[in-house]
Amino acid sequence: MQRYDVAGLGNAIVDVIAPADDAFLLTHNIAKGVMTLVDEFRADQLYGALGEAQEIAGGSAANTMAGLASLGGKGLFVGKVKQDRLGERFAESLDTLGVRYSTPMAEAGPATACCMIVVTPDGHRSMNTYLGASRELTPSDIDEAELAGASVLYLAGYSCSAPEAKAAIEKAIGIVKGAGGRVAFTLSDPFCVGRWRAEFFALLQRIDILFANEEEAKALFEVQDFDLALQEFGGWPGIAALTRSEKGCVIARGGELHVLDAVPVSQVIDTTGAGDQFAAGFLYGLTHGKDLATSGRLGALAAAEVISHYGARPETSLQRLAMETGLL
Amino acid sequence: MQRYDVAGLGNAIVDVIAPADDAFLLTHNIAKGVMTLVDEFRADQLYGALGEAQEIAGGSAANTMAGLASLGGKGLFVGKVKQDRLGERFAESLDTLGVRYSTPMAEAGPATACCMIVVTPDGHRSMNTYLGASRELTPSDIDEAELAGASVLYLAGYSCSAPEAKAAIEKAIGIVKGAGGRVAFTLSDPFCVGRWRAEFFALLQRIDILFANEEEAKALFEVQDFDLALQEFGGWPGIAALTRSEKGCVIARGGELHVLDAVPVSQVIDTTGAGDQFAAGFLYGLTHGKDLATSGRLGALAAAEVISHYGARPETSLQRLAMETGLL
Repeated sequence: MQRYDVAGLGNAIVDVIAPADDAFLLTHNIAKGVMTLVDEFRADQLYGALGEAQEIAGGSAANTMAGLASLGGKGLFVGKVKQDRLGERFAESLDTLGVRYSTPMAEAGPATACCMIVVTPDGHRSMNTYLGASRELTPSDIDEAELAGASVLYLAGYSCSAPEAKAAIEKAIGIVKGAGGRVAFTLSDPFCVGRWRAEFFALLQRIDILFANEEEAKALFEVQDFDLALQEFGGWPGIAALTRSEKGCVIARGGELHVLDAVPVSQVIDTTGAGDQFAAGFLYGLTHGKDLATSGRLGALAAAEVISHYGARPETSLQRLAMETGLL
Repeated sequence: MQRYDVAGLGNAIVDVIAPADDAFLLTHNIAKGVMTLVDEFRADQLYGALGEAQEIAGGSAANTMAGLASLGGKGLFVGKVKQDRLGERFAESLDTLGVRYSTPMAEAGPATACCMIVVTPDGHRSMNTYLGASRELTPSDIDEAELAGASVLYLAGYSCSAPEAKAAIEKAIGIVKGAGGRVAFTLSDPFCVGRWRAEFFALLQRIDILFANEEEAKALFEVQDFDLALQEFGGWPGIAALTRSEKGCVIARGGELHVLDAVPVSQVIDTTGAGDQFAAGFLYGLTHGKDLATSGRLGALAAAEVISHYGARPETSLQRLAMETGLL
């Protein structure tokens, strides 16, 4: 059986990035600076209007797999695209990185998910996400033989999933747990947390590793202060990896607690993907025998790399960076 | 018996602050921006040269007592001055604040300690400290009846003390411990820590509460990283209150650990006294039945007040501030 350090399961999305001015946003009724979910009709309309655009495979869990690969880790991605141009593009990008991707492409139904990102001259990113095929994952897409080989199953975007996709996720959890692996989960954003709190708490009982940024952790426990959220994890047996932007991160497992600094960057260019890459570094460490503190430092290093340039995936070898700083 | 929340024991120093230009520093061979210890002859010389100067009672432990009083706490100060003009000035300042001060004044010997602070137009502070009478504390100065009433003995500047003063400190520790009180100790600065490490480790076995800033904690354990220092406290049964400037603080007691944010200030004017006031807030909380997190927040609040203006003692009522923010 093929072994994987991490199997990432999440929305398979292609980012379509184009520059435009504020007039374009007004003409096309795009809300500035935020992420809006759109339907296929509107997605087509916007795609047609964008003109010359850059297409980059994205999606939170797939970005994490890209980071894992950059560290030299072995990753499997599970997520649904349609067999269309963007779907092929998505699959190619993972193949190029050496990430295994074998989820069958949909032959009919909604198009491959895409996130149209309009970058205005002031640097703001206005996002319109069409989830399309990514919501069509079903239990039959979950390959038991492959998933059983994963040391860690990493789940992103659980809350926003369709019922069939949730059943697929449940199946994946069962397979990985059954094979002795661990399950990691990332809280997606503070709004998600607020809306799905009861569901998240139920899930907490079944997962081993939780990623959350400070705002998400506070939203989960409905507290105003980071330390109050941290104390809530005191009785939880899993590993909580709590990221705090420039304040670094805190890693907690029962009584063991690490307070780690952020890795300094000369200039923060684009924070997109910081959480995804933190998870990549942390999970690489955990699956390679590193202690919690070293794993956290690997996460911080990967996050620092990705925020120092545009885009949500590493542009330099994280493995080389980690070796240079003595973490590997 | 009179009860005290905290008895502060440390150097009794009067700050003598005057503006001057760089030419003055050059003429008088004053090293810019640092603290230099000077003898009585040189102290006299500089004092004469300074001209119009502001005199403010200072010294780390006395500043902490001022903060405690501002929170409504009952403090006792133990430290030695001479019966001269600055000595009277020092005693008056504590009396005004309602801090008990009964250490007998020296009638002969070195003059009252002073710290001559030259502030150049660029805002730099060049300090010349004459320890004088403050080093003359002896065991006979320690009033058993008074110290036995203290819930906490707070020690600052232990490492720089003369042998007789050390014997006095030992006596004070014995009295407070014997009466069921706790002993708190603050690491003075990273250089001190480096020079007196073995002594500090011996002292750690006998104290209950340790204050250290990040640099001091790293110096104590000879590590380069905050988390590595933090882990060293894992097996220590006392309370470690570790301050990190704008990164907030971490409070640790065995497996209990709190990660607290700094209280935001609109503008940092002068960081002098931040550590002293943190200790004041923290010890006020501990001696008034507050939990570790609330005590840490009181410390952060007091530190934020003092760094938002010149000088090392609070200028607004810390009690009122704490009530406004719901901490009291």
